[in-house]
Amino acid sequence: MARRPSYKLPKIPEMTIRRLSVYTRCLLLLEEDGVKTISSQELADRFNLNSAQVRKDLAYFGEFGVRGIGYYVSGLKAELQRILGLDREWPVALVGFGNLGSALFHYKGFGRQGFRISAIFDEDPSKVERTVDSVPILATRDLGREVKARSIQIAIVAVPAESAQSVTEQLVAAGIKAILNFAPARLKVPRDVRLKDVDLSIELETLSFYLAKGSR
Amino acid sequence: MARRPSYKLPKIPEMTIRRLSVYTRCLLLLEEDGVKTISSQELADRFNLNSAQVRKDLAYFGEFGVRGIGYYVSGLKAELQRILGLDREWPVALVGFGNLGSALFHYKGFGRQGFRISAIFDEDPSKVERTVDSVPILATRDLGREVKARSIQIAIVAVPAESAQSVTEQLVAAGIKAILNFAPARLKVPRDVRLKDVDLSIELETLSFYLAKGSR
Repeated sequence: MARRPSYKLPKIPEMTIRRLSVYTRCLLLLEEDGVKTISSQELADRFNLNSAQVRKDLAYFGEFGVRGIGYYVSGLKAELQRILGLDREWPVALVGFGNLGSALFHYKGFGRQGFRISAIFDEDPSKVERTVDSVPILATRDLGREVKARSIQIAIVAVPAESAQSVTEQLVAAGIKAILNFAPARLKVPRDVRLKDVDLSIELETLSFYLAKGSR
Repeated sequence: MARRPSYKLPKIPEMTIRRLSVYTRCLLLLEEDGVKTISSQELADRFNLNSAQVRKDLAYFGEFGVRGIGYYVSGLKAELQRILGLDREWPVALVGFGNLGSALFHYKGFGRQGFRISAIFDEDPSKVERTVDSVPILATRDLGREVKARSIQIAIVAVPAESAQSVTEQLVAAGIKAILNFAPARLKVPRDVRLKDVDLSIELETLSFYLAKGSR
């Protein structure tokens, strides 16, 4: 169970990274409540987590607990934010400004964590050259130039399935290094580009699996 | 590695369930292409999957491969759909019809997999008593009665964080057994209710983790 703390570890499970995000939120709430220190057990009890899991996840990154005290809330929060890259602002390109793109643009959670949609791209000429909350909507054909000019590394793809691969190729050519894909399409990206698919109906299917199982 | 095929197995990893959804889609595409049989290796090559993983995932549910032939595409697809509960239609309640709720309502993937949003609930009186594509928008205060009357078991929560728990309690009281939650809130549900949180900024944070790591 004991691991040597180092960022050079080859493989940190993605679920660990996801849980670090959750812990960061819990610590933010504790900080707002004026809590200075907390044990892993109290943290687990309060937010319905698993204390052994908390300790194991954090152990990938270092020794954060202090014997007899627990964790310093603000210190651990800042450390986790740094690990998650949330100690800076990330400009994000949003490609596709239909229903889903528009919902993602207005989704408050992104901004709160330092992700700022700084350019929107759409093919529809009637949408282009407007701004939404001061963010410009640009023509998808200008994506390469604009993404480079704005040093954007992260993109959200919210276009229909049939245009997702071509948009992705434009994004990769423009230097994008991480893509969050909402299009129901299997995208191909080079190995140095991180791709994360969000398939909303898969989430519903895990639920129907359990419901169907119950009725079998 | 060898497990006895049975639905009674206590614990099937959620990632296995998610991959079954992916396999089902791949098989649908193959079926459309007129492919009758396929080996796990060909399936893996064609869709960028891991063939050992495919075999292991399927082994939880039975012996589907035929030696020297591979899988019968249509048969396996139908079997996986049955396992995932996609061989029937699931009426779904959507609670919250703001930007995100509206995007989710128009998201085509749900309907394709047999999930049909059959009632929408919102607190805003100006939205209530309209219909969208023949689906009624109802007052959230009538949720209990309407969900029961329509025998709905699955709900999508797309309300602001501050009203998410109270909406969830109404859903549970109305007999909902599975909730897909988009509100950035930690919801409490009884043990017999499946809750699946979709936190869109956690997805972005896993990406920024890798970008930040690369720049350290």
